[in-house]
Amino acid sequence: MNMLVDGEWRTDAYETTNEDGTFERQTTAFRDRIEDEPDAHFQPESGRYHLYVCRACPWAHRTLITRKLKGLDDAITVDYVDPYRGDDGWQFTPEKDGCTPDRVNGADYLREVYVKADPNMTGRVTVPVLWDKQEGTIVNNESAEIMRMLDTEFDGVADNDVDLYPEGYREEVDRLIEEIYEPINNGVYRTGFADSQAAYDEAVAELFDALDHWDSVLADQRYLAGDRLTEADIAMFTTLVRFDEVYHTHFMCNHRLIREYDNLWPYLRDVYQTGDIAETVDMDHIKEHYYTTHPDVSPKRIVPKGPDPDFEAPHDRNDLSGTPPADLV
Amino acid sequence: MNMLVDGEWRTDAYETTNEDGTFERQTTAFRDRIEDEPDAHFQPESGRYHLYVCRACPWAHRTLITRKLKGLDDAITVDYVDPYRGDDGWQFTPEKDGCTPDRVNGADYLREVYVKADPNMTGRVTVPVLWDKQEGTIVNNESAEIMRMLDTEFDGVADNDVDLYPEGYREEVDRLIEEIYEPINNGVYRTGFADSQAAYDEAVAELFDALDHWDSVLADQRYLAGDRLTEADIAMFTTLVRFDEVYHTHFMCNHRLIREYDNLWPYLRDVYQTGDIAETVDMDHIKEHYYTTHPDVSPKRIVPKGPDPDFEAPHDRNDLSGTPPADLV
Repeated sequence: MNMLVDGEWRTDAYETTNEDGTFERQTTAFRDRIEDEPDAHFQPESGRYHLYVCRACPWAHRTLITRKLKGLDDAITVDYVDPYRGDDGWQFTPEKDGCTPDRVNGADYLREVYVKADPNMTGRVTVPVLWDKQEGTIVNNESAEIMRMLDTEFDGVADNDVDLYPEGYREEVDRLIEEIYEPINNGVYRTGFADSQAAYDEAVAELFDALDHWDSVLADQRYLAGDRLTEADIAMFTTLVRFDEVYHTHFMCNHRLIREYDNLWPYLRDVYQTGDIAETVDMDHIKEHYYTTHPDVSPKRIVPKGPDPDFEAPHDRNDLSGTPPADLV
Repeated sequence: MNMLVDGEWRTDAYETTNEDGTFERQTTAFRDRIEDEPDAHFQPESGRYHLYVCRACPWAHRTLITRKLKGLDDAITVDYVDPYRGDDGWQFTPEKDGCTPDRVNGADYLREVYVKADPNMTGRVTVPVLWDKQEGTIVNNESAEIMRMLDTEFDGVADNDVDLYPEGYREEVDRLIEEIYEPINNGVYRTGFADSQAAYDEAVAELFDALDHWDSVLADQRYLAGDRLTEADIAMFTTLVRFDEVYHTHFMCNHRLIREYDNLWPYLRDVYQTGDIAETVDMDHIKEHYYTTHPDVSPKRIVPKGPDPDFEAPHDRNDLSGTPPADLV
């Protein structure tokens, strides 16, 4: 696979599956924090930070949604890489629809941004990346941590009074994000990238057990944590919204479609229709990325027509307790 | 691809897609006919003929269903090849569930049967094969023609009084079999084997246009030709029954599932529940064949869990005009 080794780009660095065929995700490298504290090194400031994302990536998508719901469009700038990731890794192709140049560092490849932050960087070059224009470095490239920082540290900068990590729900939100990560968010990848039947069988069973569980829970409550939209819903959403178009076919998560679930499907539409979340969903980039970037899964690199689910259809979940954040209604 | 060239087995004979990426099916080689006529060379006789089939293959499946509905189990013997087709082509692996040895010619590979029939045979080695034990040769290896022969020429031998090509419907049945072949029966293959986005886009659009059309027609009539179950329904059935488990995922025919169609889905269950058709459906063989035999489509050779549609659910189509053949009710 492609990664940086001591600042050098390598395309043969190591395998991502274990001997038994199980896919193992590598950990992220930059884990600093922006904090809304007087003596913090990275302070929340309008205009200081920049996001590098791919519109197709479910991890990056978490940060785009949080930025959108908080009303941080003006405070935090964004550049969008090409959804196709080839041997050179994530790339800037401004001529392509929905893509931008790197307007901060002028890089052609995202790996240059990583090397700029750490000339001896060793690790995968992933999105999202939270860049500090003032210090000229990467603050963090772990999606859950960036989501949390945008959500909790930028209240003095944000346009909207939205809190996705509310007091009284915090332990539960942390627990939920952790609980859905392995079987669902990462589970679709473990299913699709499994290199043995046993690894596939285990991953796909865990995935659908978890989806069945949450479908049942969401029959009686509007959101994962109960009556409040939280970061846990954002984390769930970026997987669910890709499911029928991509994971079901490309990753062979084909036991059921999300649109066949009695509660997950209306829940998905409910979240989709909250605030301006819909604006952050680029299904063309999503489909192009997966179907053309993984030749070991889809060697023909053909993008299927896909089911085109109607995310705008009424969700009929208003009768459940809980409403979207006031600023988003 | 694998084929015989002048009686020799070759694994590099020619490509099956054109320059524009369109999949082209090769024609079959043996086209003789069994006829219920006094001076016919191949006479319908109990015990004389033998079928070589793969339970996974939709073309072979047509002949298995016709044999079953007509009550020809005792009159026509059958051997079943391994659902996995590797570099050596169709193979006999009697140790495997649902497979048999070649009990007529003692071959290890089906190609030996072809060479026995024609030592200079050039062409693909396919199923079904209708073998004449008396003459020691292949009568025919074209599924629609074998289906027709079993249906119309064996009335003196068959246990059931079933006619799938009834007087007054014949022109329509011929037209229907022809009409659904290219967009549907072969369409799923043209979709899945397309080597260019343009070839895929064209094939998948034709496929779903045709499915939409027949879904609409089947709202008002029980069978494709109207009120009678015919060979056209058998031809449609062997594609539809594989659709949700295989074609939707493996061949990226993922615009809709058959179980999402208002009429095609009950129609599929209706045909499935007719006579002993259910006994001819081996979903394990079907899934193993496709997902392990086409590494250019599914390189990991992993068999997905699949949706496991309930073909036994009530179909509620009894109110439409038409009933199954009397012997099958």
